[in-house]
Amino acid sequence: MREAAEPIFDVAHLGHVELLSPKPEESLWFFRDVLGMQEVARQEQSVYLRAWGEYESYSLKLTEAKQAGVAHTAFRAMSPQALERRVKVLEASGLGRGWIDGDVGHGKAYQFSDPDGHLLELYYDTEKYRAPEQLRPALKNQPQRYPDRGVGVRRLDHINFLGRDPAPNRVFYQQQLGARSTERIVLDNGTESGTWLTFTNKTYDVVYTIDATGSSGRLHHIAYWVDNREDVLRAADIYLENGVFIEFAPGKHAIAQGFFLYAHEPGGNRIEVASGGYLIFDPDWEPIIWSQEERAKGQAWGTPTVASFHTYGTPVV
Amino acid sequence: MREAAEPIFDVAHLGHVELLSPKPEESLWFFRDVLGMQEVARQEQSVYLRAWGEYESYSLKLTEAKQAGVAHTAFRAMSPQALERRVKVLEASGLGRGWIDGDVGHGKAYQFSDPDGHLLELYYDTEKYRAPEQLRPALKNQPQRYPDRGVGVRRLDHINFLGRDPAPNRVFYQQQLGARSTERIVLDNGTESGTWLTFTNKTYDVVYTIDATGSSGRLHHIAYWVDNREDVLRAADIYLENGVFIEFAPGKHAIAQGFFLYAHEPGGNRIEVASGGYLIFDPDWEPIIWSQEERAKGQAWGTPTVASFHTYGTPVV
Amino acid sequence: MREAAEPIFDVAHLGHVELLSPKPEESLWFFRDVLGMQEVARQEQSVYLRAWGEYESYSLKLTEAKQAGVAHTAFRAMSPQALERRVKVLEASGLGRGWIDGDVGHGKAYQFSDPDGHLLELYYDTEKYRAPEQLRPALKNQPQRYPDRGVGVRRLDHINFLGRDPAPNRVFYQQQLGARSTERIVLDNGTESGTWLTFTNKTYDVVYTIDATGSSGRLHHIAYWVDNREDVLRAADIYLENGVFIEFAPGKHAIAQGFFLYAHEPGGNRIEVASGGYLIFDPDWEPIIWSQEERAKGQAWGTPTVASFHTYGTPVV
Amino acid sequence: MREAAEPIFDVAHLGHVELLSPKPEESLWFFRDVLGMQEVARQEQSVYLRAWGEYESYSLKLTEAKQAGVAHTAFRAMSPQALERRVKVLEASGLGRGWIDGDVGHGKAYQFSDPDGHLLELYYDTEKYRAPEQLRPALKNQPQRYPDRGVGVRRLDHINFLGRDPAPNRVFYQQQLGARSTERIVLDNGTESGTWLTFTNKTYDVVYTIDATGSSGRLHHIAYWVDNREDVLRAADIYLENGVFIEFAPGKHAIAQGFFLYAHEPGGNRIEVASGGYLIFDPDWEPIIWSQEERAKGQAWGTPTVASFHTYGTPVV
Repeated sequence: MREAAEPIFDVAHLGHVELLSPKPEESLWFFRDVLGMQEVARQEQSVYLRAWGEYESYSLKLTEAKQAGVAHTAFRAMSPQALERRVKVLEASGLGRGWIDGDVGHGKAYQFSDPDGHLLELYYDTEKYRAPEQLRPALKNQPQRYPDRGVGVRRLDHINFLGRDPAPNRVFYQQQLGARSTERIVLDNGTESGTWLTFTNKTYDVVYTIDATGSSGRLHHIAYWVDNREDVLRAADIYLENGVFIEFAPGKHAIAQGFFLYAHEPGGNRIEVASGGYLIFDPDWEPIIWSQEERAKGQAWGTPTVASFHTYGTPVV
Repeated sequence: MREAAEPIFDVAHLGHVELLSPKPEESLWFFRDVLGMQEVARQEQSVYLRAWGEYESYSLKLTEAKQAGVAHTAFRAMSPQALERRVKVLEASGLGRGWIDGDVGHGKAYQFSDPDGHLLELYYDTEKYRAPEQLRPALKNQPQRYPDRGVGVRRLDHINFLGRDPAPNRVFYQQQLGARSTERIVLDNGTESGTWLTFTNKTYDVVYTIDATGSSGRLHHIAYWVDNREDVLRAADIYLENGVFIEFAPGKHAIAQGFFLYAHEPGGNRIEVASGGYLIFDPDWEPIIWSQEERAKGQAWGTPTVASFHTYGTPVV
Repeated sequence: MREAAEPIFDVAHLGHVELLSPKPEESLWFFRDVLGMQEVARQEQSVYLRAWGEYESYSLKLTEAKQAGVAHTAFRAMSPQALERRVKVLEASGLGRGWIDGDVGHGKAYQFSDPDGHLLELYYDTEKYRAPEQLRPALKNQPQRYPDRGVGVRRLDHINFLGRDPAPNRVFYQQQLGARSTERIVLDNGTESGTWLTFTNKTYDVVYTIDATGSSGRLHHIAYWVDNREDVLRAADIYLENGVFIEFAPGKHAIAQGFFLYAHEPGGNRIEVASGGYLIFDPDWEPIIWSQEERAKGQAWGTPTVASFHTYGTPVV
Repeated sequence: MREAAEPIFDVAHLGHVELLSPKPEESLWFFRDVLGMQEVARQEQSVYLRAWGEYESYSLKLTEAKQAGVAHTAFRAMSPQALERRVKVLEASGLGRGWIDGDVGHGKAYQFSDPDGHLLELYYDTEKYRAPEQLRPALKNQPQRYPDRGVGVRRLDHINFLGRDPAPNRVFYQQQLGARSTERIVLDNGTESGTWLTFTNKTYDVVYTIDATGSSGRLHHIAYWVDNREDVLRAADIYLENGVFIEFAPGKHAIAQGFFLYAHEPGGNRIEVASGGYLIFDPDWEPIIWSQEERAKGQAWGTPTVASFHTYGTPVV
C-alpha cells in the first residue's frame, strides 16, 4: 500500500469577499435588487450583504473606493486549533501580516497575502445568521426566507483572482493552507495559466488565472451560486431587463463543467452566476491538466471564450 | 474563544452498496436499462455496476439472493493512516469483525457492524475507473461518457437504513467514524425516529430511520443522484413507460430539502432518484431537530408521506 | 375522401375572468405580490390585473363580493364578423342575454350563459397593452418587462368550471362556439364527469368537471401559465414562504399531461400555476376518452388526487 | 368597429420535410440514435422517421442524394374543402405543379413551389400513427412511448428556408396559403432579410432568411422541439459525447425568443433543437419589425450570431 500523504483540513471554506466600487449606490442596487441579496449592516464606507442560503451573517462587504477590485478575501478555519496551526505556518512563510480584531460578523482574523499580493484573512469565530421576523424561513433548515425578487442567489461560491503567475499561488495554497489542486491549464511553454483549488467537496473555491496585462493583485470575478441551470437562464433575462452588461452569456465551461453567466456590476467588477459542475469525493484526486490545444477548443460546447475574459479585470489597468 | 472539539476526517465518503435481489435479471434490467448504469464486472452470483460520474469502478454490487435487502455497505477511508486509526477504534468498540482481502475494484477492507447489525466495511485501496474506448468521455474531467439512455444517474448519493433505534447508530457513526450529525427527528416521547449523518459537504451520506416493524438490519432505500430536478421528473416518466412501480412521486423533502422520486426495483428494494438539497460548509453545524408536530406537516409542500414509507423495507417482513 | 365537417374558428381565445373575493386586499396581495401580476386599473369595487406576457390589457378583474367565485368569463372573437356570426347563433340558442357596452380595456360584448348558468361574454374590440416607461421590455416582441418578483406568471391559461352535468356544456361550446373537444372522462354509468375544450392549439382553454355537491355555476379553478416546470417548483417554494395554502403539490396530470400546482388565494378561489402538456395540431383530433378504471390510477405518476379536489369550489357550499 | 379582414384557416400545420443526404447511413444514425427518432418505413432510397409526440406517421423523409438539402416540404390542410380551396388559389398563382398520388403515410397531395423555387406540397388525407406493442405509451393521450435514448425530440417544429428575397415568399404564404406574418427583419436599405410565418398559435412554422450567396432553393435548417430548456442543454452534452458538430451552442434568440441549439447532421444539413419562445393568440397580431441596428445587438443575451449562420446552407455552394 502506497503511503499517501495525509490531507490537511484546517480551512473550512471561503467566507466573504470585500469588493471595491467607485459607484457604491449602483453596485448596491445590483447586489440587492438584481441579485436579490439582503443588506445586513452598514459601517463607514461599507455595506454588508448576504445571500439567502448562507449560515454566516454575510459574504459580501461592498466598500466605496476610487477603483473597482477586491480589497480582502476571508476564509473560515475548521476549528480554533486549526486557525492557530495555520497562523504558525503562515508566519513562517514570510507572507503573514498579523492579527486584526475582527469585523462585522466575525472575530479576530489573521491577515496574510498570497504570492501575488492579494490580501487574505483567516478567522474562526463567526456570527451565525439569525433571521429577523420578516425574513424567517418556512423550513427550519434554511437560514433565511427565499427572496422572491431578483435572481435570488443562494451563496457565495468562489473567487477567481488574476495573477502574474498562478503556479506559486497554487503551491502556497496547497502547502500553507492545505488546499487541494483540482484542475489546471498548462501551456505548451510550461506556463500554468490557470489553476483551480478547493477546500471542500466542490470542484473549486479559489481560482488563479494569468493576468495578461502583467499586473498583480487584480480580480477576475467572484461567483454566486444558484441551484439549477434554469435559474442561470432566468438571471440572464433579469440582467437583460435591468440593462446589466452581459459579458459572456450562459454556457458550460469545459474546466470544472460549471454552467456560467458573466456580467459586470455597475462598479465594474465581473460577477458570475454559477450552477452545475461536479463534486469531488476522491481523497487521492489527480489534478486534471488541460493542454493549450485542448483549451483552444473553447468552452464545453465549442463556444469561444470572449476576448475580454483574458484581459479585463479590476482594477482596470 | 470556545475550544471547539476538532472534527475527524478519516472517512472520505460512501463507496458502494451490495444489494440482494431474488430477481437478479429483472433487477439488472432496472439498474442498467432504466437507470442507465454500466455493468463493469460479474463474479459468482454478483454483477457490479457503476454510474457515469463515479471515479471508482462501481457503486453497486447486485447479488442474487433469496430475499431482497442490503448485504454490505462500504465506505472509503481518507488515507491509509486514517484507515488504520479507524480500525483501531472499531476493534475497541466491540463491533469489529475483521479484515477481508478485498473484492472486485478495491483492496483489503475492515468489516464491522453498526449497533443495528448492518454489515459495514471500510477500505482505502481502490481502483480508479478507466473507461474503455467506447465509453471515453468528451471532457477529460469526467470519468465516463454520459449515457444517453435511461435516467442517466450520475453517482450513488446515500443509503437509508432502517433500524430498531436510530440514536445509538448515530452515536456510533459520530464517535467511531467521525460522521457529523446534520438533521434529526425527535418524537414527543423522546425517541429519535430518524437521523441524518454526513462525512462530506453533502447534507447526508447515511440515514437511519426507525423500523416500525421492530426488525433489525433492514434497508429503507439507496439513492442515486441526478444533476437537476428536471432529470428527476424525466425519471418519473421513464418509470411510467417501463412499468416501474412509483411509490412516492417527485416532491421536495422538508428534511434536507432534497427533491425525490421513490420506486421499487423489480427485486423489491426501494430506490430513490435524488437531486437538490443543500451543502453544509459550517464546521460547527448545529443539528436541526424536527419535532413530531413539525413532521406532521408532511413533506416541504404539505404532501403527506406515503404510508408504506413507514413500514416497507427489505427484506420484507 | 371522407367529407370532414369544416371546423369553425370564430372564437380566438379565453380573454379574461372576473373573480370575486370576500377579502379583496389579501387577494390583491396574492395576485400582485405572490404571483407577480401587475395592476393596470381600478374601478368601483374591482382591480384589473395582467400577467407580463399578455397582449391585451388584463386577464383578471378582481371584484370585492360577499362570496368567492367567478362573476364572468370573457372570450375574444376572431374578427368583427366572427363576433356577429356567434351572436346570431347564441341568440337562437335561448342562452343569450344581450349586449353590454364594454368594460375597462375592451369594447361592446355579448353576454350569454352556458347551460350550467355561468355568465360568459364574447367581444372583439380590445385595447392592446402598451407598457409604461418603467415596464418597457428589453425585447420588442414582449408586451411587458419580465417581473423579477414573485412567481412571475406569464399569461392566463384556462378556466375550469364546476357544473351539474359537463356534457351539455361541452355540446354547447362545440355547437354554439366552435370549440373542439380534446379529452373527456366517462364513468361506467355513462356520466361524462369531466370534459376538456379548446379554441386554440393548446390542449384546453376551458374545462367542465362535475360538481359533487350538485350545485350550479361554481368555479373549480383558473390557471396561470409559467414557461417551465422549474418555475412551478419555484412557485411552490414561494407559496411556502408566503403561507399560501398548497392544496395539491406539484405533479403531472394524466389528462392533458400538464404540470400543476394548486393553491387557494386568500379569498378562497383555487388557483393553478401550470406548465407543460402538449399542443394539438391535428384538425381531426379524436377526443381521448378516459374510463373510470383508468382515472382510478390517479395522476400520471400514480399520485392520488386530493379529496378536496372533488368537492371544493367557489362559492363554498 | 374597424372591419378587420377575416383570417383564413385552411392550412393546419407543417407536416413533414424530405431531407437529402449524401451520407444516408450516418444521417440515419444521427436522427435515430442521437435525436432518438423512430424509423417507421423504408422505400427506395428513403427512410421515414418520426418523433414520439407526432400524431401523423412521420415528419422526416430522409433520402439518399448526391448533395444535402431539402427535397420537398409538406403542409397538412385543415379539411378536404380547405385543400380544394387552396389548390384553386395555387393553380391561379402560376406556381402550381399538380397533384401526386401520395406517399407513405398520406394520400393525394398538390405540389407547388414558393417564389424562390422550393418544392412544397399540400395534403389532407393522412395516416394517424398507431404505435406497435413495444412502442405503446403508458398514457393514452400520447401517440408513442417516450424514448429513453438520445435527445428524445418530441415533434418537428419549423423549417427555415434560405431565399434570394424573403419578402415575395412571405406575401405568397400570406395570400395563397393564409399564413400570418409574425416577425420580420428589415434592413436600412429596405430589404426584408428575414421573415417569420405561422399557421398555428406557435410564433412560426416557416422562416425565410436571405441567402447571402444569392442562391435559390436552399435550406437553412429544420428544427425539432423538446419540452424544456434543460432538454436543449442535455442535447448539447449528447452532441458533445457523440462528436456531432455544434455550430451554435445553446442560447436565446431575440426574434421569437426561442431557446436554440444548432448542429450539423453528418450529411451536412443544419438541425436545430428548439424549445421555449411564446404562443400568439391575438388574431390582429401586428408583425414585429426588427431594424438593422436592433439586430446588430446579436441574440437576446448579446451573443453575436455565428458567422457561418449567414452563409452556410444546403446544398453547400
